[in-house]
Amino acid sequence: MDKVNLDQKFALFSEHWSPKIVGEMNGQFVKLAKVQGELVWHAHDQEDEMFLVTKGRLTIQMRDRDVVLGPGEFFVVPKGVEHAPKAEEETHIVLFEPKSTAHTGKTSSDMTVAVEDQEWI
Amino acid sequence: MDKVNLDQKFALFSEHWSPKIVGEMNGQFVKLAKVQGELVWHAHDQEDEMFLVTKGRLTIQMRDRDVVLGPGEFFVVPKGVEHAPKAEEETHIVLFEPKSTAHTGKTSSDMTVAVEDQEWI
Repeated sequence: MDKVNLDQKFALFSEHWSPKIVGEMNGQFVKLAKVQGELVWHAHDQEDEMFLVTKGRLTIQMRDRDVVLGPGEFFVVPKGVEHAPKAEEETHIVLFEPKSTAHTGKTSSDMTVAVEDQEWI
Repeated sequence: MDKVNLDQKFALFSEHWSPKIVGEMNGQFVKLAKVQGELVWHAHDQEDEMFLVTKGRLTIQMRDRDVVLGPGEFFVVPKGVEHAPKAEEETHIVLFEPKSTAHTGKTSSDMTVAVEDQEWI
């Protein structure tokens, strides 16, 4: 594997809510996503999910509170916790999660990208 | 758990080569370290180790090549691969590794911080 430059990788795609795989370690994937708007409410039964923002602003809505992340901030959504990320402006996020994680959990919507369709860039 | 602001956490300590834990997910720790100079050569038999640079410049020496990382760049050292990170200027890095990982692997030196002595900040 070569080193990964986050900005160079973000420049390779433009679609929203479609995570791209850029790294792998210990059974986890490192993924990049550009997001704007709101994703469906969902949970991951077995997997914690880490969101690190590099540009913009991400609101992670949970049932009991919201967490707002700016550049250089991260949050781990614990397994089992329902959440719905949203962003008013285009926001760049780095995700860390097990290779098995479906990005909308058990919830299927027209925004869902199947695990097997997530691609390396 | 609350959100983590990387700059705020980096401001809480000054010592070099002494990783601080700032997050946890799926059996992995997220750690911050300030580094300058060179760490001992070591390997982790069972664990991949991810280095993400946020400030400065990190050279990850390996036996067959060096990888040089600037801000916004990361590299995963695969398990079993000998490496020795070094930095000429003070450099800030974010590490992702299993909770069991000793930062100098099987190699013990006067720079080694025992796993049980690594602290949350």
